[in-house]
Amino acid sequence: MSEIEKRLLTLGETLPPAKAPVANYLGCKRSGDILYVSARVSEARGEVGTDLNLAAAQAATRRVILDLLAIVKADIGDLDLIISVEKLVGFVRAAPHFTQLPQVIDGASDLLVALFGEAGRHARTATGAAQLPYGAAVQIEMILLLKSPAKIG
Amino acid sequence: MSEIEKRLLTLGETLPPAKAPVANYLGCKRSGDILYVSARVSEARGEVGTDLNLAAAQAATRRVILDLLAIVKADIGDLDLIISVEKLVGFVRAAPHFTQLPQVIDGASDLLVALFGEAGRHARTATGAAQLPYGAAVQIEMILLLKSPAKIG
Amino acid sequence: MSEIEKRLLTLGETLPPAKAPVANYLGCKRSGDILYVSARVSEARGEVGTDLNLAAAQAATRRVILDLLAIVKADIGDLDLIISVEKLVGFVRAAPHFTQLPQVIDGASDLLVALFGEAGRHARTATGAAQLPYGAAVQIEMILLLKSPAKIG
Repeated sequence: MSEIEKRLLTLGETLPPAKAPVANYLGCKRSGDILYVSARVSEARGEVGTDLNLAAAQAATRRVILDLLAIVKADIGDLDLIISVEKLVGFVRAAPHFTQLPQVIDGASDLLVALFGEAGRHARTATGAAQLPYGAAVQIEMILLLKSPAKIG
Repeated sequence: MSEIEKRLLTLGETLPPAKAPVANYLGCKRSGDILYVSARVSEARGEVGTDLNLAAAQAATRRVILDLLAIVKADIGDLDLIISVEKLVGFVRAAPHFTQLPQVIDGASDLLVALFGEAGRHARTATGAAQLPYGAAVQIEMILLLKSPAKIG
Repeated sequence: MSEIEKRLLTLGETLPPAKAPVANYLGCKRSGDILYVSARVSEARGEVGTDLNLAAAQAATRRVILDLLAIVKADIGDLDLIISVEKLVGFVRAAPHFTQLPQVIDGASDLLVALFGEAGRHARTATGAAQLPYGAAVQIEMILLLKSPAKIG
């Protein structure tokens, strides 16, 4: 078990099964030492600020990170190959009056920092979207830096 | 004629003239072997789910890829310099009830995979936007990996 | 004083104090020679096309670039370490009828080109967002290319 998965356990979390892409794209694509991780949406559906409150949206965002890490593990074989989290983009399907988008995306960022420490701290964009795939509440994509040579082609 | 343009012909497509940027930016910018391709919007205007149905939005998305490839060819001289498609971000101007955003962006992804094969498979974000430039229905940006040394400075 | 700050002065601008991130993320993160600069929103709140007109939105966008450069300077120590601006993404909180999103983001692009010359010309995505953090009018993120070795770890 990777060090990252051990730390997940201490946080009371485990990796879910890796979900397959819902359309014609890859879960992640490597470019040199950079891994572009495709966006995933939350299982939680609805609008943040009406259908979900801040705490529910943060929890949904945290679970998206677990989904993304499961996909990354399925692709590269070992989460300990991750050197750092470079960037994260989070889209929040926000009600017109709901403006705490950064606080929603902290659900993701806080988990990454808890898992990877200083290396988990990242550049970030937290923004709003009128609509998300399947009516989801939040959507997250990441750029990771990997150790080289890595186990993927 | 590049191999990619020959493949386009077999798919019944040809490159349109390369459009100039509509404002103060570049069509693409190279960073080492990475080519950042600026977003372009569809000529199709309107909201997907009301003004355009899924099939029309997919076709619009496919034509944006042809526009992007024309711009890339104008910049780097030869589409065969493209090693792979790293990442694609697609914004869909979706009606509030329309949630099949990934299926719209498959219009772009399917064409890239048909053209570039396995190397055309990419990380992806398909998301919704309240409004797009000029009221367009879809907007696409890409990150490409190029052979080095390339023909652009 | 860096050459870039001297040029700012000739444009009648100075760097504001660098703002701290509003949540759990970094102002920028370096990956090799690439610097991912986290999105910042404008101090100007409201919807472009109703609460703000085009000129006010352009001015707000320009001030976001000053904020981003202040953050970059605080991180890397010297703006003259910037080789070029690779990419910019701008989100505009646009009224439903307002479609001049590229013109809004020209407020950012024009300033970058005035400051960095040809090296300031970049790939770009200008798009719409239903809502932005704190109800801001515009939001900008950038990717910069830096000289190596740089002064940050």
